[in-house]
Amino acid sequence: MADRGGATDRITSLSNATVKAIRGLWLAKNRKRSGLFLAEGLKLVLDAIEAGWAPRQLVHADRIEPATPLAAAADACRADGGAVIAVSEAVLAKIAKRDNPQSVIGVFAQTTLDADDLLPGASEVWVALEGIRDPGNLGTIIRTCDAVGAAGILLGGYTVDPFGVETVRATMGSIFHVPLARMDATDFVATVHGWPGPTIGTHLAAKHDYREVDYAAPLLLVMGAEQSGLTEAAAAACSRLVKLPMAGKADSLNLAVATGVLLYEARRKDL
Amino acid sequence: MADRGGATDRITSLSNATVKAIRGLWLAKNRKRSGLFLAEGLKLVLDAIEAGWAPRQLVHADRIEPATPLAAAADACRADGGAVIAVSEAVLAKIAKRDNPQSVIGVFAQTTLDADDLLPGASEVWVALEGIRDPGNLGTIIRTCDAVGAAGILLGGYTVDPFGVETVRATMGSIFHVPLARMDATDFVATVHGWPGPTIGTHLAAKHDYREVDYAAPLLLVMGAEQSGLTEAAAAACSRLVKLPMAGKADSLNLAVATGVLLYEARRKDL
Repeated sequence: MADRGGATDRITSLSNATVKAIRGLWLAKNRKRSGLFLAEGLKLVLDAIEAGWAPRQLVHADRIEPATPLAAAADACRADGGAVIAVSEAVLAKIAKRDNPQSVIGVFAQTTLDADDLLPGASEVWVALEGIRDPGNLGTIIRTCDAVGAAGILLGGYTVDPFGVETVRATMGSIFHVPLARMDATDFVATVHGWPGPTIGTHLAAKHDYREVDYAAPLLLVMGAEQSGLTEAAAAACSRLVKLPMAGKADSLNLAVATGVLLYEARRKDL
Repeated sequence: MADRGGATDRITSLSNATVKAIRGLWLAKNRKRSGLFLAEGLKLVLDAIEAGWAPRQLVHADRIEPATPLAAAADACRADGGAVIAVSEAVLAKIAKRDNPQSVIGVFAQTTLDADDLLPGASEVWVALEGIRDPGNLGTIIRTCDAVGAAGILLGGYTVDPFGVETVRATMGSIFHVPLARMDATDFVATVHGWPGPTIGTHLAAKHDYREVDYAAPLLLVMGAEQSGLTEAAAAACSRLVKLPMAGKADSLNLAVATGVLLYEARRKDL
């Protein structure tokens, strides 16, 4: 517990192997190989620790003063076998790819649900996303799921990496609160088909208005990709297809907005 | 009408003055000086023309074949005094800052409402955004306003430029459908205060649930900045403050999602 890294023993070189590995986590292939991801900011790291995610590495630029939140984060990291790494402001900015980075960055192990173990509780609401491509949309949906108390998210088919830096940023910390299950396109359709409660999909050609249907739990809201919507196979697996009414000249809503409107409708009697 | 630019007379140089000026529209200062902005894609340009926005310049890489949508766009541009400019694929990619750009980019004149002329119709819903910072959020809100048939948006205080490239992209064409009025912080509060109908603001400390209030038209939904919410002055100018209930560990919603949920609630009986 002696190495409360002061200004003198900080890593200042971008060619340091540890720093290079951490910076590498911007790339999907390195996240896949290592099973790790980045989350920025002391608040996020503390939220993560509270939710049971101790960082594997805690990178900081500020000096660790005793009895501060940063010291508590460092202790939690070390207690779980993680490494506390002091770096210069310049190194931190390079890791974050930002001029004014957060003063703390955590490296965490990716955790997802085993799709085989999916057993939705009787009162639960889940969201299934098929082929989602935009990191901001995925992160925002994870954040909304957290806000409404949804139990988890199924990611099906070829999707953006939920542990990418931009996605994690958009979750505003909810990446640590909302369980995720990833599966291929076939398993995704099979999971929708075998869901023990209503499976409400959105479709531009749906006959039912989203305000007309019964959102009984265990509920699965099924949303398609940004450009193309649900595949025919996924739409056919849903127990009901709904649409959001539109009045203007826009021909669709942003996916995260549509998911938010539907989640608040589905949880209308419970929130 | 003879200069249907073929492959031989296309601009291929990035040092061409016209190309440099168009590329400059990525910067806010150049948009402010010129009063112009970029919108990408033939579909968007055609939507714009249909909505009464002829492009000042139409930049294209494809050859203009007779009786095609591109030819119609070029004719509409020229008929309104605009210039049709053939460029190489490489130049177009540089203008769009993308490897696979849309094959058409339009340069349009920024158009906003004069705040002094704001006279909301009796059945109209408007959105007021105070200090919005994220281009994706603003573009998405413009798109949602279009989708629900909202009449327009007031932008108050220091906000992101609604005519920035990323904002326009996120609108998916709705930038041409939703009137915008920009005003300083003082006029913003005065406009909320003087609004002829209900002014419903969102506030984390609000007592009222968003499902409890009367959204009679002419309605103004008042939303604060991403990080800080509404200023005290703007909150005090609202006739009612509401909050969206939350159940999980997230302490707030994404601004575009919250605005979407509220707009669908406000338009619940009309859509």
